[in-house]
Amino acid sequence: MSAADLMAALFFADMRFDPKNPQHPLADRLIMSKGHAAPLLYAMWAEAGFIPRERLTDLRLFSSNLEGHPTPRLPFVDVATGSLGQGLAAGVGCALNARRIGSDYRTYVLMGDGETAEGSVWEAAASAHFFKLDSLCAILDINALGQSRATELAHDLETYRVRWSAFGWHVIAIDGHDLPQILDAYKEARATKGRPTIILARTLKGKGVTFTEGLPNWHGKALSKEQMEKAFEELNRQLAPDGNEVPKIPAPPAAPPPEAAAEMAVPQFKLGDQIATREAYGSAIAKLGAVDPRVVALDADVKNSTFSDKFEAAHPERFYQFFIAEQVMVGAAMGLAARGAIPFPSTFAAFFTRAADFIRMAAISGVNIKLAGSHAGVSIGEDGPSQMALEDFAMATAQPNFVALYPSDAVSTERLVGEAAAHQGPVYIRTSRPKTPVIYDNSEKFPIGGLKVVRKSDKDTATVIGAGVTLFEALKAHDELKSKGISIRVIDLYSVQPVDAASLIEAGKATGRLITVEDHYISGGLGDAVARAVAPAGLTVTRLAVPEIPRSGKPDELLDKFGISARHIVSAVTG
Amino acid sequence: MSAADLMAALFFADMRFDPKNPQHPLADRLIMSKGHAAPLLYAMWAEAGFIPRERLTDLRLFSSNLEGHPTPRLPFVDVATGSLGQGLAAGVGCALNARRIGSDYRTYVLMGDGETAEGSVWEAAASAHFFKLDSLCAILDINALGQSRATELAHDLETYRVRWSAFGWHVIAIDGHDLPQILDAYKEARATKGRPTIILARTLKGKGVTFTEGLPNWHGKALSKEQMEKAFEELNRQLAPDGNEVPKIPAPPAAPPPEAAAEMAVPQFKLGDQIATREAYGSAIAKLGAVDPRVVALDADVKNSTFSDKFEAAHPERFYQFFIAEQVMVGAAMGLAARGAIPFPSTFAAFFTRAADFIRMAAISGVNIKLAGSHAGVSIGEDGPSQMALEDFAMATAQPNFVALYPSDAVSTERLVGEAAAHQGPVYIRTSRPKTPVIYDNSEKFPIGGLKVVRKSDKDTATVIGAGVTLFEALKAHDELKSKGISIRVIDLYSVQPVDAASLIEAGKATGRLITVEDHYISGGLGDAVARAVAPAGLTVTRLAVPEIPRSGKPDELLDKFGISARHIVSAVTG
Repeated sequence: MSAADLMAALFFADMRFDPKNPQHPLADRLIMSKGHAAPLLYAMWAEAGFIPRERLTDLRLFSSNLEGHPTPRLPFVDVATGSLGQGLAAGVGCALNARRIGSDYRTYVLMGDGETAEGSVWEAAASAHFFKLDSLCAILDINALGQSRATELAHDLETYRVRWSAFGWHVIAIDGHDLPQILDAYKEARATKGRPTIILARTLKGKGVTFTEGLPNWHGKALSKEQMEKAFEELNRQLAPDGNEVPKIPAPPAAPPPEAAAEMAVPQFKLGDQIATREAYGSAIAKLGAVDPRVVALDADVKNSTFSDKFEAAHPERFYQFFIAEQVMVGAAMGLAARGAIPFPSTFAAFFTRAADFIRMAAISGVNIKLAGSHAGVSIGEDGPSQMALEDFAMATAQPNFVALYPSDAVSTERLVGEAAAHQGPVYIRTSRPKTPVIYDNSEKFPIGGLKVVRKSDKDTATVIGAGVTLFEALKAHDELKSKGISIRVIDLYSVQPVDAASLIEAGKATGRLITVEDHYISGGLGDAVARAVAPAGLTVTRLAVPEIPRSGKPDELLDKFGISARHIVSAVTG
Repeated sequence: MSAADLMAALFFADMRFDPKNPQHPLADRLIMSKGHAAPLLYAMWAEAGFIPRERLTDLRLFSSNLEGHPTPRLPFVDVATGSLGQGLAAGVGCALNARRIGSDYRTYVLMGDGETAEGSVWEAAASAHFFKLDSLCAILDINALGQSRATELAHDLETYRVRWSAFGWHVIAIDGHDLPQILDAYKEARATKGRPTIILARTLKGKGVTFTEGLPNWHGKALSKEQMEKAFEELNRQLAPDGNEVPKIPAPPAAPPPEAAAEMAVPQFKLGDQIATREAYGSAIAKLGAVDPRVVALDADVKNSTFSDKFEAAHPERFYQFFIAEQVMVGAAMGLAARGAIPFPSTFAAFFTRAADFIRMAAISGVNIKLAGSHAGVSIGEDGPSQMALEDFAMATAQPNFVALYPSDAVSTERLVGEAAAHQGPVYIRTSRPKTPVIYDNSEKFPIGGLKVVRKSDKDTATVIGAGVTLFEALKAHDELKSKGISIRVIDLYSVQPVDAASLIEAGKATGRLITVEDHYISGGLGDAVARAVAPAGLTVTRLAVPEIPRSGKPDELLDKFGISARHIVSAVTG
């Protein structure tokens, strides 16, 4: 109710969209960052004719897509909201996409005042200013009430003004229930060039009903039947007569033909060459970007470590720098993906945990993002535990619709980047810091959900399953055991989720034992993924993984000290 | 080198501490938020006499605690840094602790300019202003160079000034290589009352060496031997002769006696009463707070949902409101814990993912924090997936030194809150939204690492392992199966990490089958924890867990639709 006037004016007097096709590629976007205002959003689309009015009362029923907070199960929702402070970052992505496709569509984000306490909002504010996103307009519904108490700044619009101005935004402060002021603000925002605009709207929660207006303790609470009747009575007195007439909404330009990709050429590596998978990742996305205009890369000031600077060099106009701000990087990727781009945000894998809640919401949104985390595991060496991702697979594989990939050499890296782009949905790719030899022929393919049996004989007495740096430890162990007359099977589990259960079970049955070895903590990584896959066949897994918080040291030394080197594999096989 | 002058002046002309006892409870604190400046920190403590000078060259060796980034393995490090943007939040916690214990110790935080792109910095900025933390002084080393390029704002001190002023800080802008200016700034900060101070220091990266000063591409790069010799030559010319004299550092007041806790009275619940574990959590921390002055509670504007408002009502002076800003809440908890408090930050379990990187660093720090996440799983119902924590155990149990607890009724909740407080180290407690009956006698104890066998007979043909809401589904299934003449064992796995492997193996062997049922996604939860525990005995686990992204609906409906209701347990047992 605090935002109803703001939204009514936006939707029916400012925005350009197609009420019959909410996903029109050139239509203006509206992201309801304060997702708990979902009933307002649904009412707007009902008024626009997209939702039958009588369906509005299905709100929050299992049988309805009108969920408690908006999700992209509804075609007018680009990204799921309900975790506060994410919408503006997604809006940055939507606005960057407009620039990418050369459209003048505008992006609007409705935020609650309480959610501006989230740091992610200020990351997005800084980025929107850096990118000079004048097609982006935030609307701040300053109703002064959080869930449990007054917000920190209450109705202190001046402090809001000073803060947003300090972050380079054009600021318009209005009474959020005064329609002429609201309409003027949208007009002024549209005319503002070179920077984003925020409309600071002083509002009242529960506006329009005497016993709720401006009062606390109504957050998320239903009215009694009696209260509801009184509320309707009061509201009806304030409404113009309802003619069931759908307002005239400006149509967007005709939709362009869908963007298409050409096929990537086969990899061009030489067997035995030493190339870090992070470096192969960089060249792969640059190569991919050349054949697919939808591909974009996003960085958080580590492009020279993740090698995303190779993409920047090749496609500077599709490379976005977010400085050290992982939340807005992932949030913007969500927005870009929702509007048809194929974004590859990359940073140290450890620092994707900074954006874990965005990744959770990306999963709920089902958006087509491709996260690439480098510097995984203790094999990074001397920089120490703060830089080592040892829980990234736990984070990514927890989400049931995430694909999780883990290449070991340059060929598989390039192939998996291609697979990631071709897959519709969220993907996580893990790369490593140390150089590793090219072991696959350039013609090899790496379908998602597959694995590679890289060593095999009829006499194998165990199967060792590794990926990334540990695959090479497994190969060393293989050779050492072979010299002692012991044969083992070695599997490269490049697809950690989904996992090739049938092949793992087959190997387990053929060799009697399954041993996983991973540069990851023991929970949520390869070992658990394999164990889940083979449990239905009654098979168990012996897990070699990093058992404790590690420390600085040389990469090889750390692999050994934390129990995942060839020596430990040999012990596990022979022990 | 950009921060060396700032730090030398701080450490040897401003701070009050005991070079022989860095953990002195009343000593001023220094948090090196830009953890990559670790060599500077180590050099300072060597100069102060705590580290033998000859040990400085052990930097980054496995045998040394002088790691690539600082960790609390070194007694002068309160919280691990190296994931940028966390130090100021920890500093807020250190400063709040000074207030808690009535000390005038000061807290200093050295930040890099690049890290102020992290939203968490602005969460901390807003909180420090809200709490009027005039004992907190941030020092911003504005060297204008990030890792991969110039920072967004370069040497634009004016924009920094406007932003920090907008967030309510006292701002002092100086030349960070001018010692008189630096000393004056510390003096001014110390004299500033009612708000925190930030010193904006214009600096040059690689200061003092002609071929590095102010130049890019030296981040994290070692000099060649020749370059090093040249650098030493240049630096030596600029130094005063070295007398190996330890500067005179002001001593803190005598340390107070350690704080102590009395024992909590036994729970006072009535069997069969319906109480949500989140509510029992609220009353438990309030009760705990009455017997232990170290206990504090932190909220992110959901105190009326998590019931932490019960703590606020009882102990308002130890209740800290962070509004909707989970990162600073957890970061401040880290700082409080590092200085002797026992902080219980609480929010919806789903929203702890917002602070996942802080939780990762809390694990590396080994700090004594007690995270409490409410509203776990699909059992929250209509609010939908954005509010449902289904990956929280994956996040918490990935950290090898985290304890993860999951009470099912009010008695076990209160007992586990007590256990969490008594345990030294990080703990995660998961509570639920729906009311559940009290099933345990008030005298029951719940040691960390234990479990409860709640149904058992000699004829059990399977063991069903649940916790939280699914324990009650298991009990329903037990009764239904019993009426059909089938006996099952039912285990309450209240301690998910560490897990009681011996009892699980015993139950598995006795009953032939282990079935886990959890209101969590399949990866990283109870099923994986049990599977890891029983694998060494050759046992496998059948897992019932939420298999896909859920949606809004009624709690019971969702438990059933997503495969974790009594009906599914019965099928798993009989199928």
